[in-house]
Amino acid sequence: MGRFERLFEMLPDNVESVLVTSDVNRRYFTGMKSSAGTVLAFRNKAYLLIDFRYIEKARETVKTAEVLETKELYKEISALLRQEGVKNLAIESMDVTVSRLNLMKKHLKCVDIIETDTLSNTINKLRAVKDDEELEYIRKAQEIAESAFEDILCFIKEGVTEREIALELDRLMLEKGAEGISFDTIALAGENTSMPHGVPSDKKVKKGEFVLMDFGAVYNGYHSDMTRTVCVGEPDAKMTEIYNIVLTAQEKAIAAAKAGVTGSELDAVARRHICDAGYGEYFGHSLGHGVGLEIHEQPNAAPRYDKKLEKGAVVTIEPGIYIAGKFGVRIEDFVILTENGCINLTKCAKNIISL
Amino acid sequence: MGRFERLFEMLPDNVESVLVTSDVNRRYFTGMKSSAGTVLAFRNKAYLLIDFRYIEKARETVKTAEVLETKELYKEISALLRQEGVKNLAIESMDVTVSRLNLMKKHLKCVDIIETDTLSNTINKLRAVKDDEELEYIRKAQEIAESAFEDILCFIKEGVTEREIALELDRLMLEKGAEGISFDTIALAGENTSMPHGVPSDKKVKKGEFVLMDFGAVYNGYHSDMTRTVCVGEPDAKMTEIYNIVLTAQEKAIAAAKAGVTGSELDAVARRHICDAGYGEYFGHSLGHGVGLEIHEQPNAAPRYDKKLEKGAVVTIEPGIYIAGKFGVRIEDFVILTENGCINLTKCAKNIISL
Repeated sequence: MGRFERLFEMLPDNVESVLVTSDVNRRYFTGMKSSAGTVLAFRNKAYLLIDFRYIEKARETVKTAEVLETKELYKEISALLRQEGVKNLAIESMDVTVSRLNLMKKHLKCVDIIETDTLSNTINKLRAVKDDEELEYIRKAQEIAESAFEDILCFIKEGVTEREIALELDRLMLEKGAEGISFDTIALAGENTSMPHGVPSDKKVKKGEFVLMDFGAVYNGYHSDMTRTVCVGEPDAKMTEIYNIVLTAQEKAIAAAKAGVTGSELDAVARRHICDAGYGEYFGHSLGHGVGLEIHEQPNAAPRYDKKLEKGAVVTIEPGIYIAGKFGVRIEDFVILTENGCINLTKCAKNIISL
Repeated sequence: MGRFERLFEMLPDNVESVLVTSDVNRRYFTGMKSSAGTVLAFRNKAYLLIDFRYIEKARETVKTAEVLETKELYKEISALLRQEGVKNLAIESMDVTVSRLNLMKKHLKCVDIIETDTLSNTINKLRAVKDDEELEYIRKAQEIAESAFEDILCFIKEGVTEREIALELDRLMLEKGAEGISFDTIALAGENTSMPHGVPSDKKVKKGEFVLMDFGAVYNGYHSDMTRTVCVGEPDAKMTEIYNIVLTAQEKAIAAAKAGVTGSELDAVARRHICDAGYGEYFGHSLGHGVGLEIHEQPNAAPRYDKKLEKGAVVTIEPGIYIAGKFGVRIEDFVILTENGCINLTKCAKNIISL
């Protein structure tokens, strides 16, 4: 079944047409990347309205919608709405700005505009479950990131700065075929590893310090996400202790991950292990999040996320312990949920590495 | 005068309070970069409500607003609105989504929410005129980009791919202190230069081809933007002819640029020269755009932009001629408008370069 059909199957019966306006959702439904364009979909037919800059490419590549060149967008949408005789139009409330809604209200008087979160929520729910094509791109993105990770291990040594490590990771991912990086690459060393969202600085790596790297590649629009914490030289006893607590917490969560578990239940598995070890207060973020066309999407593995994780969802599993002024450890893989467990998309080893 | 004071001076008298929600405008008013936070400003006082992740940094760095840690945002905003006894609140209609507006309407019943474009338009107008601090950052961003340009000239030779040139430009800018790149760097060669928005491919540069590079650096949030078209080997007579038409068009526009000229008048100066030379139909985009905290902002130098350009505005001047199947040339500088002319922020030479 096509993505539009699945969308309308999930939407309430009374929704007669939808307007997809965000870049990411337009790409999801049409397969084409662009910075402009509007999808108008009815229960039996979909249109992509797009301007002259993209029209050739759209006509060549888009198979799921009829491609029309747009000149006066709202006039054209209005005409299609009348032609199909629909009474309402759901919009992406989480994408459309108030300014744009005001324009729509002025120009699309022939329908009731559904301003609730219905369409946005339904698309998010649909995108949370990946199909085979999506999984192929995600796997490829992860392969690129892991290959970059292998190479960066030869680059990290005493005296190299956090910023140099981050730049080199980016360069490696792009060289290996990434179309972009998933987010601003995090590379931190020593004390700085205790900041979950630290920004790489000119700090130089010293012997006996942890280096924490959180990074990902984009392939065909799809993101990967992984974190590894390695040691330059030998970790001391405390560092080894914390590393192993985080690693066991992560392995327990991976063992517990399967379709039907709620996000909060999964989060609790890792959190319980860390709390029992006495470090609960040092794990200040959620266990994980969905990954796909966006680096953060549905579903979440978080204390307050009580929805069930569905078969085909891709989620990160990334517990951490951060001791201010000392160091932090985070280990992150991402997995596809299956009926009986999960498939780990992250292949590279997680035992503590001394460089 | 502070930025908040100038904003309220420019807003209609009846606007009693404003909510600044976009990352870029929050940074403009507070000076601090963050991915969260809300500014609530009254005519005599401003607050930054921000969560625990940023609270330390905000308390240290933000001088223009009182910093409050937020836990239940709408409750806190509501309390402040009541405390100040205001009757209305203008929102950034071009940033706030419909979904968020629905939340605001539910939780901020004590005021009338001004949903028009008034606040967004006024902030854009305010940001169009740069102050000295902003100009300093823009100059620095441009210095970084130009230094990278000088280095890339040694890198470009027969056999190098477009993608390699783009990656190397990015690497150079980051190495030289850019906090990011202004936009996806464009590097195109040969026939591909005829696409104004082409994406770098694995095409190798050949002898006798143009290489067009459009790129910029970000420094302290501020962007630079420049384009140069260089030749590997010697350009033929046609290439030289087109190059010189574009260059003269650009120089004429720079000579005409000053405060008080409208965006359409400025665009027309370059366009007229290109039309007179017989290539009008090959210049399919506008002459330029504002640059600052965003790569595209107010004002524009475009055929339909009839507003006057103000003193202190920073605009690109980037005419081009694109001949499909053959080649294209674009030359772009950016300038600060002054009372009597403009100051060109782009220093490097524009005569045709043969590598």
